[in-house]
Amino acid sequence: MKYTFSDKIAELKPSAIREIFKSLTDPSVISFAAGNPAPESFPVRELSQLSAELFQTNANQALQYGITEGYTPLREAIEERQKEKFGTVREGDNTLIVSGGQQGIELTCKVLCNEGDVVVCEDPSFIGALNSFRSNGAKTVGVPVEEDGISVEALEETLRTTKNVKLLYLIPTFQNPSGITMSLAKRKAVLALAKQYGVIILEDNPYGELRFAGEDLSTIKSLDTDGIVVYCSSFSKILSAGMRVGFVIAPQELAKKLVVAKQGEDVHTNLFFQMLCHAYVTRYDLDTHIRSINELYRRKCNLMLSCIDESIPADRVTFTRPEGGLFIWGTIKDFSDSSALVKKALEKKVAVVPGSAFLCDLSATSPSFRLNYSTPSDEQIVEGIGRLGEVIRSL
Amino acid sequence: MKYTFSDKIAELKPSAIREIFKSLTDPSVISFAAGNPAPESFPVRELSQLSAELFQTNANQALQYGITEGYTPLREAIEERQKEKFGTVREGDNTLIVSGGQQGIELTCKVLCNEGDVVVCEDPSFIGALNSFRSNGAKTVGVPVEEDGISVEALEETLRTTKNVKLLYLIPTFQNPSGITMSLAKRKAVLALAKQYGVIILEDNPYGELRFAGEDLSTIKSLDTDGIVVYCSSFSKILSAGMRVGFVIAPQELAKKLVVAKQGEDVHTNLFFQMLCHAYVTRYDLDTHIRSINELYRRKCNLMLSCIDESIPADRVTFTRPEGGLFIWGTIKDFSDSSALVKKALEKKVAVVPGSAFLCDLSATSPSFRLNYSTPSDEQIVEGIGRLGEVIRSL
Repeated sequence: MKYTFSDKIAELKPSAIREIFKSLTDPSVISFAAGNPAPESFPVRELSQLSAELFQTNANQALQYGITEGYTPLREAIEERQKEKFGTVREGDNTLIVSGGQQGIELTCKVLCNEGDVVVCEDPSFIGALNSFRSNGAKTVGVPVEEDGISVEALEETLRTTKNVKLLYLIPTFQNPSGITMSLAKRKAVLALAKQYGVIILEDNPYGELRFAGEDLSTIKSLDTDGIVVYCSSFSKILSAGMRVGFVIAPQELAKKLVVAKQGEDVHTNLFFQMLCHAYVTRYDLDTHIRSINELYRRKCNLMLSCIDESIPADRVTFTRPEGGLFIWGTIKDFSDSSALVKKALEKKVAVVPGSAFLCDLSATSPSFRLNYSTPSDEQIVEGIGRLGEVIRSL
Repeated sequence: MKYTFSDKIAELKPSAIREIFKSLTDPSVISFAAGNPAPESFPVRELSQLSAELFQTNANQALQYGITEGYTPLREAIEERQKEKFGTVREGDNTLIVSGGQQGIELTCKVLCNEGDVVVCEDPSFIGALNSFRSNGAKTVGVPVEEDGISVEALEETLRTTKNVKLLYLIPTFQNPSGITMSLAKRKAVLALAKQYGVIILEDNPYGELRFAGEDLSTIKSLDTDGIVVYCSSFSKILSAGMRVGFVIAPQELAKKLVVAKQGEDVHTNLFFQMLCHAYVTRYDLDTHIRSINELYRRKCNLMLSCIDESIPADRVTFTRPEGGLFIWGTIKDFSDSSALVKKALEKKVAVVPGSAFLCDLSATSPSFRLNYSTPSDEQIVEGIGRLGEVIRSL
């Protein structure tokens, strides 16, 4: 049988990250390639206890079909916390539970974009989002990211000159892959531009709570007075990634369409874990738990940065120094394509992700690469950055 | 803000079932409208024990990101069981875990259909699938269902005269909503037609194991020698619906595309419950468990049918007499639109689903309605069918 696939899927390639992941089955490879939270960040004891209770008290509900919008008490708990801490809930907004932030991203694109419509993205950006847009037949158009976030001038030029832009996808805080946080001034400028050009902003904030230095900045959603921002986040980085529980906060009219689209995708998100999340956030202090995660990540990030300072010549590679999140972004000076580095590093059994994987233009090259510090052990960080230094000095 | 939605989503209406479900918040309403498995069918004690063990022995894996294809030991266990019992695995096929059968249906459409392409469906068919196709911008074209399954003549005519048919969606066993099972002769004829016209068949088989009378028929997938059938099923009706764990078995080339599309939707299915499913199927006897479910459903179905025989004049309404599954399908004689019945029944606090909800043509009417017997209690079945009889006699 000769298969003919839809145009959007036929053109989609397995991501470069997946190819690197294959090499990680070799246990001697030190991986800085993942985007996984540290396993120590899962509150296993608490979840285990709450799970036992849930099986005892409410199993028939937890194992049965639920409503597409999500478990109402969890939606209410999220709204309350988001309103108080981040101001991300406007009057008339709805909160939906989704199967990880990834689904929130995908549904927003599906609801807004016809095939051929454009999603403007930071360049580089989260590869999972880029592929999700592509798999819906949307085109991704990139706008460069500067030290304080997306280039506002380039964004304006793109919005002015590009037809059928339906969505502006942004990760303003501890951006994946760059670790960069967008300044408040730029958040305001970006919001004003989106309003001017009638483009919905999808603010993806999976890492926003993972701040271990500096001060919180207002989310773009909290600055929005016109209902043009859809806000997406998840419990993946603060409770468990494997459970796939995320949420979207959106103006009601838009949220209703997200629900219809989600119903066609998976009916609803795993109800047992929605109820478990709800039990956790009401019975335990999530903020205290997140502080302990951030202590861990501060230490790991600082360890990686000090190893970098020791082993990697500062005149060859510059690195971002994030105040939170999971990633450090290295850029090789006077170099066009980091893939040679990535390949040589893999030969030395260190895995990093080439910057090109995160670009909107799949044929472009990048002098940058991404390092993750949340997953490797301290020993792996020391050893792996040492090896990376050797590779870089040999380039 | 004035929102502009994608064409495919803008045209999609919340399903009639959802509207009926809203009335079910009234606890005095007896509902035959659901498609839920009986809560007694969840093996709560076993899942609870296995869950406690999983938290103790392997929590860090179960709560962490997993691979998109699904938990390998579960995939292997499914393949082994499917191969032995149903012959649904060909050489070169891949098995993927999806977030409920619903996701398997949606991904197959996404991978094969451009916007405007056609999915040919049984008419009536599963509303969740129809909306899933629509939410991908595909058109649904219906072919009538007869007592022994889809009309082969009408199917041939449709395939011959319709452009851009990319997918033929079928629920051959205990069809939702009709409860009808397609004969073996028709399964073979349908497969031959699909081959002749180069159309992929999506065989959806969520109810296939729920047989309480008669003999199993070969799945269409087991008859396929050309790799033109994608097979989709789930644990929703035999272990738990709320956990959202289903699977797709497809030729490798197609399966790879499904994986790429799934990655963009939810990265992977809840890993904890994938591991729990695996523990269940390896530690307990799933067949014995399914037999106990079928005993329950046989009793409930027979009870509903005997109440129907008692309370509803046979010259006014004909009913299907299913050998398994969850549904009975009633058709009012010399009547064009069952919605008057549905409305009057709701006034008498009995909820049934009008046949029109399951049609490809959203503006069409139907003299039929769907009854579910798995969810209501015995008392509710007796009382509810009694009330329905009154309503029908008053029509």
